[in-house]
Amino acid sequence: MDVKQFIRTIPDYPKEGIFFRDITTLLGDAEGFRSAVDALVQLHKGAKFDKVAGIEAHGFILGGAVAHQLGLGFVPVRKKGKLPWTTIGQEYDLEYGTDTVEIHSDAISAGDRILLIDDLIATGGTAEAAVKLFARAGGNVLAASFVIELSELGGRQRLEALDIEVLSLCAYEGH
Amino acid sequence: MDVKQFIRTIPDYPKEGIFFRDITTLLGDAEGFRSAVDALVQLHKGAKFDKVAGIEAHGFILGGAVAHQLGLGFVPVRKKGKLPWTTIGQEYDLEYGTDTVEIHSDAISAGDRILLIDDLIATGGTAEAAVKLFARAGGNVLAASFVIELSELGGRQRLEALDIEVLSLCAYEGH
Repeated sequence: MDVKQFIRTIPDYPKEGIFFRDITTLLGDAEGFRSAVDALVQLHKGAKFDKVAGIEAHGFILGGAVAHQLGLGFVPVRKKGKLPWTTIGQEYDLEYGTDTVEIHSDAISAGDRILLIDDLIATGGTAEAAVKLFARAGGNVLAASFVIELSELGGRQRLEALDIEVLSLCAYEGH
Repeated sequence: MDVKQFIRTIPDYPKEGIFFRDITTLLGDAEGFRSAVDALVQLHKGAKFDKVAGIEAHGFILGGAVAHQLGLGFVPVRKKGKLPWTTIGQEYDLEYGTDTVEIHSDAISAGDRILLIDDLIATGGTAEAAVKLFARAGGNVLAASFVIELSELGGRQRLEALDIEVLSLCAYEGH
C-alpha cells in the first residue's frame, strides 16, 4: 500500500518554502491508519523487543497501536514538564535554541530492548535524544520506525551511526 | 482484570491534597496496557462507530490502539495551535481561565458516529468541549470511554446529560 496517497501536503507551512507533510489525513482514514500500523508492525515481526516507545504527540497514536498489536508495554517520550513522577531528561538542539525530552526514571528495566516510533524523521534530533535517554536508563533502542522520512535531512544516517535499524514507510526529498 | 493495580497514585501532585492517578505505569506494563485497550474495545464491540477520537495526550495512546483494533480511522483532538490545516475550536472553562481544543475542519464527515477516548474523566470539561466540536463539524459523539473516572467530580453526569454513553474501567472517589 502506498501511504503517500493518504498524506496531505500543506505548502508554506509553518513558513514559506516548507512543504508540511500532514498525517492526520492518514490517521483519519480507516484503511490508511490500519495499513500504516500493520506495516510498522510487519517490519519488526521477527525482532524481539521488550517495550515500544513513542515520541509526543503523533508517536503516541501510532506507537500505542503498534505496542498493543505486538503485545508490549508503551513508554511515552514527552516534552519537558509533562510527566508526573521522577524523570530523566535529554536536551537536544533545534534550529534556534534547544528542547528537552523526558521519560520516567522507572519507565524501563535494565537491558530492555526498545522499538522507537514516531510519525516523521527529519534531522533525527529528537529521536537521537530519545535514544540517549533510554541508554542512560539502562535500555537499548534497537530500531526506530517512522511513517515518513525526509531523506535529505540526514536523520537516518544519524541514527544508523548509533547502530540503530531505521525503517520508514515512505520518503520525501526536500523538507 | 483490575486495572487499578497498574495505576500509580502520586500524593500531593500537582499540588497539595491532590492524589494524582498516573497511568504511565499501566501503559508501560504489557499485560496492563493490553487488558485496558481490550476492555475499552470490548465495551463497544456491538456498537457501530465511524471514527475514534482521542484527546491529547494520553487519549492518543489509548485511542490509537482502540481505533486500530476496531478498524477505524483516528481523529486527534488537540490543544490550540497544534494542527496544521484549517481548524475549528471550542473553548472551555478551567478552574482559572479557559482553554481551547481543536480538530481539523475536515476531520469527520457529516453524520459520523464517534467514540471519544481519554485516560481520565474528572469534571468532563474537555470531553464536553470535544463533543460540542464534533457536533459543530456535523458528527455525533455516541459514547465516551475512559480508563479512570473521578466519580465525585460530575463528569459522567455532564456527558450523560448530552445523551452520551459514558464508560470507565475504574473509578476513584475524591480527586
